[in-house]
Amino acid sequence: MDSKNKETSSPVIVHNPYLCGLKDDILYHFSLGTGTHNLPALFGDVRFVCVGGSAWRMKEFIEYIAAELGMQDPKSDYPNICAGTDRYAMYKVGPVLSVSHGIGIPSISIMLHELIKLLHHARCTNVTIIRIGTSGGIGLEPGTVVITKQSVDATFVPKFEQLILGELVVRDTDLDCSLAQELLQCSKELGQFNTVMGNTMCTLDFYEVGQGRLDGAFCLYTEKDRHKYLTKAKEAGVCNIEMESTVFAAMCKLSGLRAAVVCTTLLDRLKGDQLSSSHDVLHSYQQRPQILVGHYIKKQLKALQG
Amino acid sequence: MDSKNKETSSPVIVHNPYLCGLKDDILYHFSLGTGTHNLPALFGDVRFVCVGGSAWRMKEFIEYIAAELGMQDPKSDYPNICAGTDRYAMYKVGPVLSVSHGIGIPSISIMLHELIKLLHHARCTNVTIIRIGTSGGIGLEPGTVVITKQSVDATFVPKFEQLILGELVVRDTDLDCSLAQELLQCSKELGQFNTVMGNTMCTLDFYEVGQGRLDGAFCLYTEKDRHKYLTKAKEAGVCNIEMESTVFAAMCKLSGLRAAVVCTTLLDRLKGDQLSSSHDVLHSYQQRPQILVGHYIKKQLKALQG
Repeated sequence: MDSKNKETSSPVIVHNPYLCGLKDDILYHFSLGTGTHNLPALFGDVRFVCVGGSAWRMKEFIEYIAAELGMQDPKSDYPNICAGTDRYAMYKVGPVLSVSHGIGIPSISIMLHELIKLLHHARCTNVTIIRIGTSGGIGLEPGTVVITKQSVDATFVPKFEQLILGELVVRDTDLDCSLAQELLQCSKELGQFNTVMGNTMCTLDFYEVGQGRLDGAFCLYTEKDRHKYLTKAKEAGVCNIEMESTVFAAMCKLSGLRAAVVCTTLLDRLKGDQLSSSHDVLHSYQQRPQILVGHYIKKQLKALQG
Repeated sequence: MDSKNKETSSPVIVHNPYLCGLKDDILYHFSLGTGTHNLPALFGDVRFVCVGGSAWRMKEFIEYIAAELGMQDPKSDYPNICAGTDRYAMYKVGPVLSVSHGIGIPSISIMLHELIKLLHHARCTNVTIIRIGTSGGIGLEPGTVVITKQSVDATFVPKFEQLILGELVVRDTDLDCSLAQELLQCSKELGQFNTVMGNTMCTLDFYEVGQGRLDGAFCLYTEKDRHKYLTKAKEAGVCNIEMESTVFAAMCKLSGLRAAVVCTTLLDRLKGDQLSSSHDVLHSYQQRPQILVGHYIKKQLKALQG
């Protein structure tokens, strides 16, 4: 990295006075730890972290980015760094880390606590983190990619509320505006698929809660109620619905990570609920955030090297 | 099953008038569906469902129960029924189904919506469902097994609150008392490890939220605040803390499933936060709910056959 970048190097921040008192810090859900692994040696060069729900997709992403960066393993072998557990999967190629986070706020929050500590222990700086995911679109053609402007909760407000020791704590869900703009620019350069910037609603369930699907085991509201709710969401600027972005935005902001959310839409929720497109079509939609973020990383690395 | 059981056969209930209008019901996160799979033929004989967070553990459970019931596959091959996805894993031996649910309320709620629909479509009756999991104990020797009496939220109240289309809906978290007693009796018969009955607190995070750990990336409270909170939990009858039981209890009750939660405690949270026991010790603790539930299923099947 050049001297200008060194001067403005931004660390990964933990906010926990008790951490330095731990003899070893066991990152239990990664099956890693400061006592058993040399984290600076293993992860010190990480500059880009991509996270997504599915372990398979995050393996696919590391293979894709390795090819894009010309850093393929000749044996095509990308071992899972978290092979000692089945909770999360982690892959690395050069400065890029790819980590799965499972489904929903609690699952991604555990992963992020341990990821932030890992990057902190490894003394990484200037880290950009992007969630590449799937979502339901609102009024968008399936396959449209949404770069999140603001992540909002199920009442369309950009905040993340949680009970900490029984008391309500509200955190901001701001993402990095310039990063979002740069990603939108990358999409224009690629010209391969439709990409928009808009608000993303984060809910606690895929079926009833927040999303109002009609195809869950329980549906105690009517089609009319559901339509009214989704229309309200659209009016509030919501372009898509997923299940992790508020806590992702809140935790990344607290730890000083430059963060973005890039999700493909698998269907238009104003038109239906079931994911009835073919496996191949859904898979091609899922690759779009990977292609976009791959282009962004390649461009950034070229700029840093140049 | 005998005639007495037939007379009192209890179906798996969905509460959704829109379901019967679907041409095919795609259980997307299982990679199964009514249009592609003969669900009654595949699952019609299911009487016991065991669910747990980890896919590896649920595979281990099906191998264990197969041996216990003398139904081993000579090739030791227990294929993952949900092999078309990495979201959840599912295994079956005779009348026993074993399904993983990932971490946290949103993740288990998606699995349960699709599982309840699967059991309903397969026309299963008299189904017993047990969550076998891991947890943090409060004032208990690590390795103690807790059978949940009441599942409570992070304010120690036995309820599950959720926003449905922006409106607050509160559901009961009652579990089946007689099933809990039968499981406690099984533990006495086994005499292999300490088992207690008590309240289980269900939280939205492993670190800050509800659990008050001192080893997360963020900890904005003091050790004293944490101790006060955990002591209050203990006074409210909380024996252990996990992340899925309230929604599990609420959804099983709504669908008429006889449900229990059996979790091992991996550590005593009054004494610490980090899971520092050896891998082998933690693994032996994790096997205890499997042994207990295995004994229960064997006993039940013997009674039905006799």
